[in-house]
Amino acid sequence: MNAELSEQLSRLVRARTTAALGTLRAGAPFVSMVPYAIAPDGAGFVVHVSELSAHTKDMLSDARVSLLVAEAEGGGKTPLGLMRVSVQGLARRIPSVAPEHAVLKAAYLARFPDAEPMFGFADFSIFLIRPESARFVAGFGQARSLSGESIIRLLQQT
Amino acid sequence: MNAELSEQLSRLVRARTTAALGTLRAGAPFVSMVPYAIAPDGAGFVVHVSELSAHTKDMLSDARVSLLVAEAEGGGKTPLGLMRVSVQGLARRIPSVAPEHAVLKAAYLARFPDAEPMFGFADFSIFLIRPESARFVAGFGQARSLSGESIIRLLQQT
Repeated sequence: MNAELSEQLSRLVRARTTAALGTLRAGAPFVSMVPYAIAPDGAGFVVHVSELSAHTKDMLSDARVSLLVAEAEGGGKTPLGLMRVSVQGLARRIPSVAPEHAVLKAAYLARFPDAEPMFGFADFSIFLIRPESARFVAGFGQARSLSGESIIRLLQQT
Repeated sequence: MNAELSEQLSRLVRARTTAALGTLRAGAPFVSMVPYAIAPDGAGFVVHVSELSAHTKDMLSDARVSLLVAEAEGGGKTPLGLMRVSVQGLARRIPSVAPEHAVLKAAYLARFPDAEPMFGFADFSIFLIRPESARFVAGFGQARSLSGESIIRLLQQT
């Protein structure tokens, strides 16, 4: 992928704050909304979710997830031409005692300061979604496939 | 669900033009972006997709899909409080010779007039996604489960 496309994708994932999270539920896909942050070392996408939520139970029973980050509707663009990226990845719960927890928590709170009280709730946990592959659509008919390593390099530069 | 919540949900699905579509790919969830329209009789959500696209192949091999429609980011709301609905449904290809094709095509083009040329492409088809159940989050901590029938009644009133 050339430098211009990489820059577009990097801007997209930094500009947006919510993603559509696809999990597996009783063998079928389920899509819910999650705010996300980016791990400072580029290791993946950081979400903070309650174990009372169905999507959390889904991730604990099957780590395979998909994350869609899409450009905002409007802005004079046809919906068909909106920029978006679908990331396939593996979700892993990060216990609060894990060495990487503090830095991931800080990255999340830097984006979502009003989520602070939820870090005091016992049922909430950080999950890190590590990209395995991605499909980036820069506009109508402009699609590219990316490896997990490419996405991680791109996140590291953000 | 009370009249106020129903009205909020109805407004949400009419105001937005794109959804996150979850399909099943090699047993894992995959989320992509699709523009959608609403079937005039409330029978479901109408998408127009290419058989060259992976999500179309997914729907043809397993009809179980999930559709997330979420409120736009911003507007002074925290991302955690955005209104959204996750619809679980079954996707069915509507051949151009099917009796309902004309009305679904008209509903789609009423929303997306610039999609007209794509109706001339042999690889594009309309799919109708019939709701089986849904989870509506009206705001932080305000979630409701809905039956497929409830969603269909609501779409009929739009």
